[in-house]
Amino acid sequence: MSSPIHFWFDFSSPYSYIVDEWIDALAARHGRAVERHAMLLGVTFQAAELKSPVAYPLKREYSLRDFARSARFQGLQIRMPSNFPLPTQNAARVFWWQHDTVSPQAAAAWARAAFRAVFTRGVLINEAPALKALAAENGLDADAAEAAWNDPQWKARLKAECDAAIAGGMFGAPWIVVDGEPFWGNDRKAQIERWLAEGPF
Amino acid sequence: MSSPIHFWFDFSSPYSYIVDEWIDALAARHGRAVERHAMLLGVTFQAAELKSPVAYPLKREYSLRDFARSARFQGLQIRMPSNFPLPTQNAARVFWWQHDTVSPQAAAAWARAAFRAVFTRGVLINEAPALKALAAENGLDADAAEAAWNDPQWKARLKAECDAAIAGGMFGAPWIVVDGEPFWGNDRKAQIERWLAEGPF
Repeated sequence: MSSPIHFWFDFSSPYSYIVDEWIDALAARHGRAVERHAMLLGVTFQAAELKSPVAYPLKREYSLRDFARSARFQGLQIRMPSNFPLPTQNAARVFWWQHDTVSPQAAAAWARAAFRAVFTRGVLINEAPALKALAAENGLDADAAEAAWNDPQWKARLKAECDAAIAGGMFGAPWIVVDGEPFWGNDRKAQIERWLAEGPF
Repeated sequence: MSSPIHFWFDFSSPYSYIVDEWIDALAARHGRAVERHAMLLGVTFQAAELKSPVAYPLKREYSLRDFARSARFQGLQIRMPSNFPLPTQNAARVFWWQHDTVSPQAAAAWARAAFRAVFTRGVLINEAPALKALAAENGLDADAAEAAWNDPQWKARLKAECDAAIAGGMFGAPWIVVDGEPFWGNDRKAQIERWLAEGPF
């Protein structure tokens, strides 16, 4: 099997939610694995001196329309949470806790659950009770999850991933790296597929 | 025939160059005409309090890579001009002069020639001698072209289009409007095609 596809995301990124829904099947069609990396988009924005597209009124209006249309284009439901963008550091620490103490697969299952909670049910994963409930729904020990997101170990783990994202030149999410080639955005799906099928172009 | 597709662009936008190369065939497949609108991206950026993606070092580096890759993905050559982004108001005024005094088709031919000059030959269309030479190469009267871009009438015509772009909520280019639905970017091609084939989704 060739090298894995690296998929970097933030749980508050609607385009990351969309990618999360198609990337495993795409990778599998081309004999690749997916390695997921939860990070914090706000940290990479700051490092690149950028702001969220939804920080600009006109761009926000278009982006909200495009989030929904891009989801429907992929056959997905979408419902934006009432608080957007959401702080996602706790959900991201739970991701790394699952990744390192259980398995990357367990972390991927958590990512799927968290994305769907945020973007199909409007769950406010920045609120501790909602996040604990989501953990419990998905077979995790809710108190252990809360302990993990407050634990310096998992805070440091997430920070290290954010530092790696910055070092890798990332300034947005979703960010997908195939054979060292960076692809920014859900809308690079067709280019990624060609790369996987035919190699560099 | 259904309503035309409106295609708004700036001559210094590489993604607009790419769209210019595919949009006529796409429209024709779906029985639509294309109405082109030359405008100034800098003016819409300013109105939306945005800056060019290439104004941010990290985003610039990625964007230059993505411009080239996205062109190759469409089977197009690309060579970035040595001065980028380029001021394009003179080329845009020539566009509107051709549009209003000859025909939209003549303006479209000028657009094609100007995009290819900038992005395949590195022609610096912000420089008067280069722009006059390009006009002459394309069968225009070079002195009349220069007179047009210095004429308050064509300055006002371009300004009116920029004002319309701002009033329409545009903050980037290429900007494509189909049946009132806005699509920002070369990378919305697949969504536009579905819209044309199946209607709103």
